[in-house]
Amino acid sequence: MKIIIEKSYKELSETTARILIAPMYQDKRVNISITGGKSPAGTYEIVTKLLLQHKEDFTNVHYYNFDEIPIGGNPDGLTRKMLNKQYFLPADIAEENIHLLNCNKYESYDKIIFDAGGLDLMLIGLGADGHFCGNMPYSTQFDNLTYRIDVLEKYPWSEEMKTIPDCDNLEYFVSMGPSSIMRVKHLVLIVNGNNKAQAVKKLLSQPVDNTFPASILRCHPNLTVILDSDAASLI
Amino acid sequence: MKIIIEKSYKELSETTARILIAPMYQDKRVNISITGGKSPAGTYEIVTKLLLQHKEDFTNVHYYNFDEIPIGGNPDGLTRKMLNKQYFLPADIAEENIHLLNCNKYESYDKIIFDAGGLDLMLIGLGADGHFCGNMPYSTQFDNLTYRIDVLEKYPWSEEMKTIPDCDNLEYFVSMGPSSIMRVKHLVLIVNGNNKAQAVKKLLSQPVDNTFPASILRCHPNLTVILDSDAASLI
Amino acid sequence: MKIIIEKSYKELSETTARILIAPMYQDKRVNISITGGKSPAGTYEIVTKLLLQHKEDFTNVHYYNFDEIPIGGNPDGLTRKMLNKQYFLPADIAEENIHLLNCNKYESYDKIIFDAGGLDLMLIGLGADGHFCGNMPYSTQFDNLTYRIDVLEKYPWSEEMKTIPDCDNLEYFVSMGPSSIMRVKHLVLIVNGNNKAQAVKKLLSQPVDNTFPASILRCHPNLTVILDSDAASLI
Amino acid sequence: MKIIIEKSYKELSETTARILIAPMYQDKRVNISITGGKSPAGTYEIVTKLLLQHKEDFTNVHYYNFDEIPIGGNPDGLTRKMLNKQYFLPADIAEENIHLLNCNKYESYDKIIFDAGGLDLMLIGLGADGHFCGNMPYSTQFDNLTYRIDVLEKYPWSEEMKTIPDCDNLEYFVSMGPSSIMRVKHLVLIVNGNNKAQAVKKLLSQPVDNTFPASILRCHPNLTVILDSDAASLI
Repeated sequence: MKIIIEKSYKELSETTARILIAPMYQDKRVNISITGGKSPAGTYEIVTKLLLQHKEDFTNVHYYNFDEIPIGGNPDGLTRKMLNKQYFLPADIAEENIHLLNCNKYESYDKIIFDAGGLDLMLIGLGADGHFCGNMPYSTQFDNLTYRIDVLEKYPWSEEMKTIPDCDNLEYFVSMGPSSIMRVKHLVLIVNGNNKAQAVKKLLSQPVDNTFPASILRCHPNLTVILDSDAASLI
Repeated sequence: MKIIIEKSYKELSETTARILIAPMYQDKRVNISITGGKSPAGTYEIVTKLLLQHKEDFTNVHYYNFDEIPIGGNPDGLTRKMLNKQYFLPADIAEENIHLLNCNKYESYDKIIFDAGGLDLMLIGLGADGHFCGNMPYSTQFDNLTYRIDVLEKYPWSEEMKTIPDCDNLEYFVSMGPSSIMRVKHLVLIVNGNNKAQAVKKLLSQPVDNTFPASILRCHPNLTVILDSDAASLI
Repeated sequence: MKIIIEKSYKELSETTARILIAPMYQDKRVNISITGGKSPAGTYEIVTKLLLQHKEDFTNVHYYNFDEIPIGGNPDGLTRKMLNKQYFLPADIAEENIHLLNCNKYESYDKIIFDAGGLDLMLIGLGADGHFCGNMPYSTQFDNLTYRIDVLEKYPWSEEMKTIPDCDNLEYFVSMGPSSIMRVKHLVLIVNGNNKAQAVKKLLSQPVDNTFPASILRCHPNLTVILDSDAASLI
Repeated sequence: MKIIIEKSYKELSETTARILIAPMYQDKRVNISITGGKSPAGTYEIVTKLLLQHKEDFTNVHYYNFDEIPIGGNPDGLTRKMLNKQYFLPADIAEENIHLLNCNKYESYDKIIFDAGGLDLMLIGLGADGHFCGNMPYSTQFDNLTYRIDVLEKYPWSEEMKTIPDCDNLEYFVSMGPSSIMRVKHLVLIVNGNNKAQAVKKLLSQPVDNTFPASILRCHPNLTVILDSDAASLI
């Protein structure tokens, strides 16, 4: 694990944008897995601006996500909606370069990635409760490949998941599991803000077990953690 | 994880020998980590015979081990002794191609491997108690890089470790940890014999925790498990 | 370039078989490009025997060829016919794991390979005139990707190509070009027999130009040349 | 080959800086080969500024050059002098992370790079006469690894080489050869200015031979060419 501490969210976003876009300039297929949400918003703003200047040059870049939350009965869910809004539409990414995890067909997702040569880069965030992707406390097994997680009352996070807007009474969601993530060639975790400082501390110190799932990331062969100074304030 | 079941120990050895020697024919540096012991003896017999036929061709192959048990006060210990006897001397490997983990300098071992381009292949065995390399039940943390393990009475394996011939009253040993092993590009685990059948069953079914350390191997990005039919009899 | 000299064709075949099958045991997609013909026949005999013992284990292996000669008006040509007979049928390879170059759709072949993560291994032979794959003297440009070669009278090999059985009056054929081959992660060239000794000598000594196209292989980043002692008799 | 055209030298430098620095953030050893000169000056200004903000984070990055011109009798020559001034000193790179090609020991340079895991990235420029690194017209053989080039009168560039400041009466220089460069995982060629427009046109159109040595770069497995609009004005 390599930890990079940036002064501010702006600088975190600039550094992450450099890491995200640089592999795309290569003359080979590049497979990147990204996530929606607040943390990467600044990064995507920079990257999409650069991509739009050179649209024709990036047809070699293919996009994947790593979790999905169904909206109503629709297997194309919340992540797709967010990624469309934050990245795919503003950056004008061609549909044929987008390969999203679908709630109904999640079992074949690891093979789809295998058959495309594996993921070169994945950008993830960290939950205050130690979740990463859809790998939640207690429900995660470290040997999970892409899997379905049922929202059961026994899990401490079940109530919160049921209050996600547009996803009332959520019964399940899907995610790439820790074993899927171990195969990613370069894993980039970004965390910003004071409200994540405690989680960052735990990321570095908790025993590796599923009460704080992100603890397993310390075993990843090539992980870069990028923090702003607020998120790094307790380490 | 891919599981290969061979009819007999002879065939297990032939398959493992093919996997071990094939990368060596490449025109680039190849870093291989091997182990002493009974399981790989048949493999080494085949490989050393092939290497001796083409000695001059394999100067690109560099050897590493992954654990060491000190003999008396000597930091060059039991593993080195076994590897010398089983492989390095019979195959006439040049000293400059051997980079062994030393009980005194274990802290720099991960960097030494980093700086040589990483391990391309590692051959390991499985203990009946679920240990792999020197990663023993209860003493292993999954985020360990190369580390020192103290032989403390609280560990169920402490008595057994103190009865190793030539290593009376063993106080400690050293090993690459699970996080070091996650970085190996191709990990090959060989297991043979009825007495390991229960351990193989657990390897595939135990929860991923340090009561059975080899459970973490199910998260490795590229693991091949080779079993003879005896070792595979309970799966 | 690394050169391995084996005593006989039998040993050349055994070594090549080890190199060909070893990557297949990995727990990831493996893309291999092979060729029909006399030189690899011994290799395929060994490999198919091993594959049949473990059929279920090798669904991760995908096959590609690198040239094709149309038979009559049929775009599926001579190479496919030979590979079916020598390898795909005896080894019972599933159709979905075979991705052959087609005379009509050759222009997309480099992208197909790109999108599958690139070729891990390619096995090629050497022509007495210095051709490799369908890269013939004078017609080859070193920056060619997969391309169509017209059989024109100006080429010294045009007469010979017109006498290939089943391919009367051949007008063209297709081949991966030198630039496609530079991208292969491990390139294995096998040559046997006295009648190739002169070509082997030239391979190592000719200037790098298209009068002896295989001269460009000396620039490949990871090339293994396996010779029997007859083929090596002039070096 | 992928071609990126930037509006100005400023944008060329920004893009190149992103490509150069991004791999350094990884948690593994990264080997980078760079060059002195005018074209990369803008890039180095950006990169050194970023490196100075995170000095402690980049101890995993190792530097190599690819050619050297002796100054007087001193084997440490012109390239080292320029790199010190343009990059190593301003960016405060530790001596132990710098592994420069030395005019006296050039024969071992390819092995040194091999043993460090190979070059991940190389940044090169293009000469108006088609040279790249020290691979000059007529004197270059495409299968050269790192080699010595004698300044002989028969070469059209010999007079010019003898007028390099501080290198009066230059007798020889050393360079990584085309075969060394084929092994680089990502090759980045930057060209700016009207005076290079003709060379860029030739880069894309000349036959692959040593009258215009950079023509061989069209065979590289992963080449990115970054041009400003002036350098791209004839394509």
